[in-house]
Amino acid sequence: MKKLTIIKVGGALVENEESLAQLLSNFAAVEGYKILVHGGGRSATALAAQLGIETHMVNGRRITDAEMLRVATMVYAGLVNKNIVAKLQGLGVDAIGMTGADLNIIRSDKRPVGEVDYGFVGDVKKVNGGKLASLLDLRAVPVIAPLTHDGNGQLLNTNADTMASTVATALSTYFDVTLTYCFEKPGVLRNPDDESSLIPQITAEDFKAYVADGTVSGGMIPKIENALAAVKQGVKRVVITSANNLTGGTVITV
Amino acid sequence: MKKLTIIKVGGALVENEESLAQLLSNFAAVEGYKILVHGGGRSATALAAQLGIETHMVNGRRITDAEMLRVATMVYAGLVNKNIVAKLQGLGVDAIGMTGADLNIIRSDKRPVGEVDYGFVGDVKKVNGGKLASLLDLRAVPVIAPLTHDGNGQLLNTNADTMASTVATALSTYFDVTLTYCFEKPGVLRNPDDESSLIPQITAEDFKAYVADGTVSGGMIPKIENALAAVKQGVKRVVITSANNLTGGTVITV
Repeated sequence: MKKLTIIKVGGALVENEESLAQLLSNFAAVEGYKILVHGGGRSATALAAQLGIETHMVNGRRITDAEMLRVATMVYAGLVNKNIVAKLQGLGVDAIGMTGADLNIIRSDKRPVGEVDYGFVGDVKKVNGGKLASLLDLRAVPVIAPLTHDGNGQLLNTNADTMASTVATALSTYFDVTLTYCFEKPGVLRNPDDESSLIPQITAEDFKAYVADGTVSGGMIPKIENALAAVKQGVKRVVITSANNLTGGTVITV
Repeated sequence: MKKLTIIKVGGALVENEESLAQLLSNFAAVEGYKILVHGGGRSATALAAQLGIETHMVNGRRITDAEMLRVATMVYAGLVNKNIVAKLQGLGVDAIGMTGADLNIIRSDKRPVGEVDYGFVGDVKKVNGGKLASLLDLRAVPVIAPLTHDGNGQLLNTNADTMASTVATALSTYFDVTLTYCFEKPGVLRNPDDESSLIPQITAEDFKAYVADGTVSGGMIPKIENALAAVKQGVKRVVITSANNLTGGTVITV
C-alpha cells in the first residue's frame, strides 16, 4: 500500500517567519505522498482588532460571527495558506492550497446552537477521500486551511486537529497513513522537563498504564485518546512530535 | 476535441452580492469543461484603507507594495475566491479555488523596475496547461484569483485579463477553447446606446473595417485586438459579453 504522511501544524507556528521556514524545509524533505493541515492562529484576532471587530470567546473558544468568518477566510485561506503554497513551490513541492469547500473535500454541519451559539463554526460531517486520493495521484500536495463548507454555499470555521484526523481516517482506505501532530515538545516525555526522556512508542495498553502511574497526565491525555481513536479507525500510526523533528517523536499505534 | 469555456469576470461584479449570485447561476449552467477567472476589485482598496494602508496609483495603476500584496492575497485568494468556491459547490459545481502558485499553474516574472516601480506585480511567464488539463480531467472547475508566483516563494499581483488569455492559449492544445470576457454591455454594439445593435461576430477583416468607419472606437479597440491575438494563438473563439448573457455576445474569430 502506498504511504501517505499527513502533518498537522498549529497556527502559531505558521505565523512566525522563522519557524515556518524551518517547518516547510522539513516538510519538503518528507518522501512520498503528503498533506499539510495548518491551523489558524492569532493573526486573525490581530486583524480583527485592527478592523475594530471584537473577538468574543466563550469557555476559551472563539465565537465566529459573520465578520469574524470574513477575517478567518482572508487570513487562513488567503494570507497564511497561499504564502505556504508559494514557499513550498519555491522548495520544489507541488502544493495546492485548499479549504474543505474546494473540490468539496470536507463538508461540515454548522454547530447547533445550544447553551452557546458558536456562530459560523462547522463540525466535520464527511471527507471526500476519493477526491483527495485523485489529487494525490496527480502528485499534488494539498495544503489545507481550517475552513470547511456546508454544501449550501456557506463557509464554516473548523478545528484543524479534527480536519487532520478525519482526513487521515478517510484516506486510510487508499493509503498506509501516518498522521503527525506537531506541538512544542519533541513528543510524549516521561519527564516534561527532560527532552531526552522521550517515549518512542505508546500502544493502547501502554497508555492505560501510563495514565495509571501518572506518566501521562493533563492535556496529553485527550491528545493520546484522539490519536488512539484515529488508529482504531484505520490510520496506521499517529505521531506526536515537534515541527523540527518530523521523523522522530512518539508513535501512537495499536 | 473536448470543449472548454473560460469565463473572465471583473472584480466589481464579484464584489456585489446580487450580480455575483446571477453570474454564478449562469456559470453553473455552462455545459462541459469550464474555468472561471475573476478580477480583484475595489474591496482590497477598501480593506487597505481600513487598515491605514495607503493606495498608491501611477498612471491609473495600483502599486503593490508588501502591505498591499498582503491585502490582495487576503481579499482575492481568501475572501472573494473561497466565497465563490463555496457558492458554486452549493450550485453543484465542483469548484476548486486557485492562484497561479497552486500546482504551479501560472508562473510570472516580477515586473522590472523602470520609470515606475510597480512593486509585487507579476507579468505572466508560463502557464502549465498540462496540469490544468489534469485537473479538468478530474471534472474539477478551477476558479482562478488574480495572483501568480515567481517560483521562488514570492506571490505576485497579476492582471486577470492576461491570466485568462494566457490560460486559454495554453489550454488550446488540449481543448477547443472559448474565452469569454464579461463586461457591462451585452457585446460590441453598433450604437453604444442601443443594446439591440449587437454585432454577433467580428473577424480580423471586419475589425479593420469597423475601426475605419468608426463603428469600433476607444477602449473597445484594445479589447478586440487582445481577443484577435488570442485567436491567432489557437483559442477557437473569444466572446465579449455581459455576465447575464454568457451564451450570447459578440464572437471574435478568424
